[in-house]
Amino acid sequence: MATKAFIDLVAECDNFPYDEQYASKFYKLYLPHDDRPHGYMLPEVVRKMPWTPSFRIDYDAHTVSLQDPSSSSHVDLTSFCNAELATTVNAAIDANLFAIIHGQHSEPFAILGANNPIVHMERFAAPLFGIVMRGAHATAYTRSRATGEMKLWIPRRSPLMFTYPGKLDSTVAGGVRAGEGPLEAIVHEAAEEASLPEELVRRDVRAAGTLTYMSETRAGYAQGAEVGLAAPDCVYLYDLEVAEDVVLKPRDDEVKEFYLWGVEETKRALLNEEFKTNSAVVMIDFFVRHGIITQENEKDYVEIIVRMHRKLPFPTTPRPHWH
Amino acid sequence: MATKAFIDLVAECDNFPYDEQYASKFYKLYLPHDDRPHGYMLPEVVRKMPWTPSFRIDYDAHTVSLQDPSSSSHVDLTSFCNAELATTVNAAIDANLFAIIHGQHSEPFAILGANNPIVHMERFAAPLFGIVMRGAHATAYTRSRATGEMKLWIPRRSPLMFTYPGKLDSTVAGGVRAGEGPLEAIVHEAAEEASLPEELVRRDVRAAGTLTYMSETRAGYAQGAEVGLAAPDCVYLYDLEVAEDVVLKPRDDEVKEFYLWGVEETKRALLNEEFKTNSAVVMIDFFVRHGIITQENEKDYVEIIVRMHRKLPFPTTPRPHWH
Repeated sequence: MATKAFIDLVAECDNFPYDEQYASKFYKLYLPHDDRPHGYMLPEVVRKMPWTPSFRIDYDAHTVSLQDPSSSSHVDLTSFCNAELATTVNAAIDANLFAIIHGQHSEPFAILGANNPIVHMERFAAPLFGIVMRGAHATAYTRSRATGEMKLWIPRRSPLMFTYPGKLDSTVAGGVRAGEGPLEAIVHEAAEEASLPEELVRRDVRAAGTLTYMSETRAGYAQGAEVGLAAPDCVYLYDLEVAEDVVLKPRDDEVKEFYLWGVEETKRALLNEEFKTNSAVVMIDFFVRHGIITQENEKDYVEIIVRMHRKLPFPTTPRPHWH
Repeated sequence: MATKAFIDLVAECDNFPYDEQYASKFYKLYLPHDDRPHGYMLPEVVRKMPWTPSFRIDYDAHTVSLQDPSSSSHVDLTSFCNAELATTVNAAIDANLFAIIHGQHSEPFAILGANNPIVHMERFAAPLFGIVMRGAHATAYTRSRATGEMKLWIPRRSPLMFTYPGKLDSTVAGGVRAGEGPLEAIVHEAAEEASLPEELVRRDVRAAGTLTYMSETRAGYAQGAEVGLAAPDCVYLYDLEVAEDVVLKPRDDEVKEFYLWGVEETKRALLNEEFKTNSAVVMIDFFVRHGIITQENEKDYVEIIVRMHRKLPFPTTPRPHWH
């Protein structure tokens, strides 16, 4: 009954149009002493945001720029950026101005390519500013010693989750918090979500690249949330081969249960749209890297790979030294 | 003594500017009944090319369009496209109009995203039309049963090769010919270049994704060749883990010798610019997929990954059904 193709699942996630004309309606967000934009903001969000006086809005140029008040040192400048952004976000939360924040504070993460380490942004507020979010996903799998057959550990999200309740997910996944690296995120999420011991994860987990894509929030992204926001994302990928006698069990209340599925069963669930949007793409990338999806069996092979590694219109590295 | 960073090696290969303004100086090449351009051509190449009368050049719109003379069937249209392109390329070779062809015919490959299977283009002529080339590279490696240490099989190109003489290369590499898939290319190249038996390769080789990038030919790309040509490329990647007792040996005259190197030795050779330009990127992608280059040890991690998977301005799939 599956009518979707793998490219459709990728396009569902990477759904922000590539047309440069489309992007021109957004305001670009700038940090001090950095001519690279760090986010795209809708005009109505720019007008509604309770900016501090340190932000200069240019309604003609479509820019929002945080202005350095002085010739600050880098350390001072970082504190300054964090204070101005936090004051603005706090005011937006207190006045309950945006449904996507739903009146709550959320964990801070670091703006990926900011020159000043570490400029913070709260996760729920990020899509209002169009800032690149950072996540880490690990795929745990076993390989039968007898037959070589691969099986994948796949959790079903709790029906009580705020986002994507009841959907299938990556084995282990979470946001990368400010001051933390993606490997550390995987280590503590693996313990919290799957009861996997830290020593096992540190010994056997293997980095496997990143996904980059850009979403546009749609009805259903989060209940009642603003639509049309730019939500660029960078997901750090990890593979974790575990022995056949390792059993994954939910520990926190985010996971309902774990399945151990073969490749064909997992493919069917993907094409049936049973996975959380970006976790489907994590699984597709896993299948590409492990030689399961190939040029020989997938006509959209190259297009799928390209769209999972989008060049975002924002920096991903501080102070680039190349051009 | 290494002064290069991995991102520099990727940027060396993916050196066609991202600036859309830059691309506007090129003429776009169109095939019949397809509104997607299949190549970028320099104005001086368009003027010099001995086009058949079926090509319409629009000097204002900067387009070269192959015109369907009739309401052909798809089969007829394919033959028509091939005949018109071949007549044009043959005339260019006979008159020795372009240094990059150096007066020789070369193997045909299929234009990647053409709607009509299979439209052919000769490899040496491809950069004149800016058409996406297709290659396949496999990286052979061993893992010590005792220590788990990885070693890589790395060939040195013959000093007599026309391109990149004496440089280090991917274990096995070659163009994907028209009518052939990338896996078949790897199987026969592995026999020709590394004396690897077909059964071993078919059993153990694993597809691992693609690289896409866009080069601009520079002085040194090939002796005396035109510079500034657009040379987009799609490389199909394969990993081949071999047992410790398998020994790779050159068979044809393209490889001088094989080395079996550890990861650190290979990294040093990369940063010393000892590899062929695109084979360096193949190795970097291998290191990313195998958890050797990580976010924790490489500050340009995300940028490296994105630039190895460039969205080319040409289609990679016939008749897309998504947008």
